Amino acid sequence: MLKELKDTKREDKKELKTEIRELREKLLAQQQLIRSSALPVIVLVEGWAAAGKGSMINELISEIDPRFYNVTSPAAAQAEDRYPFLYPYAKAIPENGKIMFYDSGWMEGAVRKYLRREITKKEYKEILRSVNEFERQLRDGGYLLIKLFLHIGQEEQRQRLATLRENYETQWRVTTEDIWQHNEYKLFCETYDSFMEETNELIAWHVLNGEDKRGAVRDALKILVKTIDKGLEEGKYIGKPFKEEFPLLKMPKLAEIDLSPVIEEEEYKTELKKLQTRLGQLHNTIYRKKIPVVLCYEGWDAAGKGGNIRRVARPLDPRGFDVVPISSPEPHELNRQYLWRFWTRLPRSGHVCIFDRTWYGRVMVERLEGFCKEDDWKRAYNEINEFERQLTDWGAVVLKFWIQIDQDTQLARFTDRQNTPEKQWKLTEEDWRNREKWPQYEEAVDEMLQKTSTENAPWFIIESNDKKYARIKTLKIIIKALEEACESRL
Amino acid sequence: MLKELKDTKREDKKELKTEIRELREKLLAQQQLIRSSALPVIVLVEGWAAAGKGSMINELISEIDPRFYNVTSPAAAQAEDRYPFLYPYAKAIPENGKIMFYDSGWMEGAVRKYLRREITKKEYKEILRSVNEFERQLRDGGYLLIKLFLHIGQEEQRQRLATLRENYETQWRVTTEDIWQHNEYKLFCETYDSFMEETNELIAWHVLNGEDKRGAVRDALKILVKTIDKGLEEGKYIGKPFKEEFPLLKMPKLAEIDLSPVIEEEEYKTELKKLQTRLGQLHNTIYRKKIPVVLCYEGWDAAGKGGNIRRVARPLDPRGFDVVPISSPEPHELNRQYLWRFWTRLPRSGHVCIFDRTWYGRVMVERLEGFCKEDDWKRAYNEINEFERQLTDWGAVVLKFWIQIDQDTQLARFTDRQNTPEKQWKLTEEDWRNREKWPQYEEAVDEMLQKTSTENAPWFIIESNDKKYARIKTLKIIIKALEEACESRL
Repeated sequence: MLKELKDTKREDKKELKTEIRELREKLLAQQQLIRSSALPVIVLVEGWAAAGKGSMINELISEIDPRFYNVTSPAAAQAEDRYPFLYPYAKAIPENGKIMFYDSGWMEGAVRKYLRREITKKEYKEILRSVNEFERQLRDGGYLLIKLFLHIGQEEQRQRLATLRENYETQWRVTTEDIWQHNEYKLFCETYDSFMEETNELIAWHVLNGEDKRGAVRDALKILVKTIDKGLEEGKYIGKPFKEEFPLLKMPKLAEIDLSPVIEEEEYKTELKKLQTRLGQLHNTIYRKKIPVVLCYEGWDAAGKGGNIRRVARPLDPRGFDVVPISSPEPHELNRQYLWRFWTRLPRSGHVCIFDRTWYGRVMVERLEGFCKEDDWKRAYNEINEFERQLTDWGAVVLKFWIQIDQDTQLARFTDRQNTPEKQWKLTEEDWRNREKWPQYEEAVDEMLQKTSTENAPWFIIESNDKKYARIKTLKIIIKALEEACESRL
Repeated sequence: MLKELKDTKREDKKELKTEIRELREKLLAQQQLIRSSALPVIVLVEGWAAAGKGSMINELISEIDPRFYNVTSPAAAQAEDRYPFLYPYAKAIPENGKIMFYDSGWMEGAVRKYLRREITKKEYKEILRSVNEFERQLRDGGYLLIKLFLHIGQEEQRQRLATLRENYETQWRVTTEDIWQHNEYKLFCETYDSFMEETNELIAWHVLNGEDKRGAVRDALKILVKTIDKGLEEGKYIGKPFKEEFPLLKMPKLAEIDLSPVIEEEEYKTELKKLQTRLGQLHNTIYRKKIPVVLCYEGWDAAGKGGNIRRVARPLDPRGFDVVPISSPEPHELNRQYLWRFWTRLPRSGHVCIFDRTWYGRVMVERLEGFCKEDDWKRAYNEINEFERQLTDWGAVVLKFWIQIDQDTQLARFTDRQNTPEKQWKLTEEDWRNREKWPQYEEAVDEMLQKTSTENAPWFIIESNDKKYARIKTLKIIIKALEEACESRL
């Protein structure tokens, strides 16, 4: 894609100025339509060091009301190195009706990491895949994505870097990384090129000639105006469900689960103590080896999630874990792709994050209550598989627990809660309403378990008619998985 | 406060165990009351390295439902060094009805910075003052604050550090900072001591004997249970307004403002270009000198805030500024002290943050619409002065603009918006309702300007019947302030 730049013929300056002014006016008019149709727009501004990414963004935003756009520089946030590759980019996605400019985006992030040898070729390939998944998920979630690359030749770059370094006020802008890029121009060029080729199919890249600054602004404005026009015309896109090959584990139906297992009080106490001690030791190793751990709890109301989580959390160092309770999304969460509120809650590497309810709400409550379209929840199975693979690619241990009870046990526990003053807060009208929809939920849960139990992020059905049995079983699963992870990592 | 620890007489182990169990049960019962009465609780766990802060927290939380507490380790987040001292602590305050454990808190943060000589004595004193302000503001905002210090002697610390280092699984826990603290035990002891003495008046410290682990747990539980009991009994505290001496600038009343100034089109264009160029240069210097800039916009509806902000933002490097539009708070924001949503939006040092509406909503819309109690908004003048002083102590340039128009101009602009299709979105029913309350708002604004125009964070009234005049005036003020700041900083 990055052909050599030829001397562009000088365009008529006045004509170019008029053209830019007209395009800006169009963009200004579009801004209100973007807002009123709640369309979220992402503009990636990638390109060479000193190609003028900053000035380009400045030109693009000059007429837009500052309330409707933001600029993010994810690369600047080094603290985010302890998160999955996509984390800083996912965290910055705009709300509906707003434009976010990325200066720069995931290409720059991936290419630098790769060329700096911070990641292996294999990891780089995984990132490429995850980028394609991420872009598709954004598009399918109604995001308009525009990808620009600002291209300049090596000689032009040399001159610009030299000029920047000559001036005291601007010399700090030239980093050693920039110099390195300049010296390795050819290597970078090939890598950018192949990155763009591998991420061009779904959402095409636009290479702009950065040597002609005004021309590049005009071209970028044209692309923005055209793409946004098309997006507004076609209305918010809702992606269709798609098939993807994930190695799925065979799961039983909930109805087939034998809920009779119990544990004796004496055995429970001994086991609990032993397992908690072991988990406490493992937490140390996990912390030291920087292994991220994501534990997901789903299950019927009153199944015993809270007590189970408490037993798992008990031996953990409180500095190294978080319990994240998930309830209905707030407005700023509803205004973004549905996985956003989970991306932003991920643990740092070496930490344990326990989700009390999870992203699986998409294919349960949101499906059944009609909070999203049919295509949305049907698409979600694969999107979630991809999301979880991105977590395990990062190195996370991802374990998912379905805490299972039968209807009689639930009724008994509801009744107990109703009759025990200090437990009444746990029981809401909604719990009773959900109970009435047990068959529909069971169907949804069965489908979810079939479609999302992957080798890398498996589901475990935990029989919880006897809560103590459930706790011991959960602890054993966690310990086994963590032992394996600790053994296999440096 | 940190007396030498004497050999504590061995208590009856069984008795102690019973006592701890009973206290935990009480805490468990309180947890539901904390939730139902929406009481937010902060527990600071400070103390020596290897004093057992982590295990202590573990013991305290063991029976609490993980949905109702969190543990934060603000010291771990080095990325936050580019923010005001209190930033990581303010960011972590709990929601109503939840408990947040700080491991450790602002004492450790301040003392380390001071002894490492990252801050001067003067800055340390400022931090001490800001800590007292912060604690008072939390208390006055209904927070229950419990401050614990886990004390061990130097010899005990030596033994514990040695034990940790002997074991491969735990040796990484002993940092060079810990060793340094151990070697400088006496110096740390004096510094902790004086810090506690200077922050003891409003909310008292509790020193626990960390050499007796179980005893310390019992004592901590006792303190928690007792303080929470008291808090629940007295109900959520609402602080009284208080008087504090701030050097205030004399401000005119809005009615006295002459709104006739205008600027000729030709002069406007020339000036705008000149000023924007200058601001662009200054942005470079600000970035390089890491000066944080906070620009606050308030003003009547249709006064021209948006257009004014756009002219200021135009020459700025988009990587180095953010425009933060403030609208009604979302639930998670309402559930915390009212300044929280501004703390979390502060710029990094070297960046410019433009607030389109601000924390002054507290003494305008929240006051007039009854969204907070009278004591709350009356107290807010001083709280805001303190907050802004914390920003300027940090090094920020804080400028506040009141964009002023008269009622006729507003009506003309409303009418224009109503009649221009692409501007209609800007006009809401609420704007008309607010307009009816012009006299009440004017009274509130006058009071606000009188009480919060401090030398370090002054208000500027911007005559905006002529928007162009307003933009030029604002730009000039910003440039002057930034030039002064750039000159006076290294």
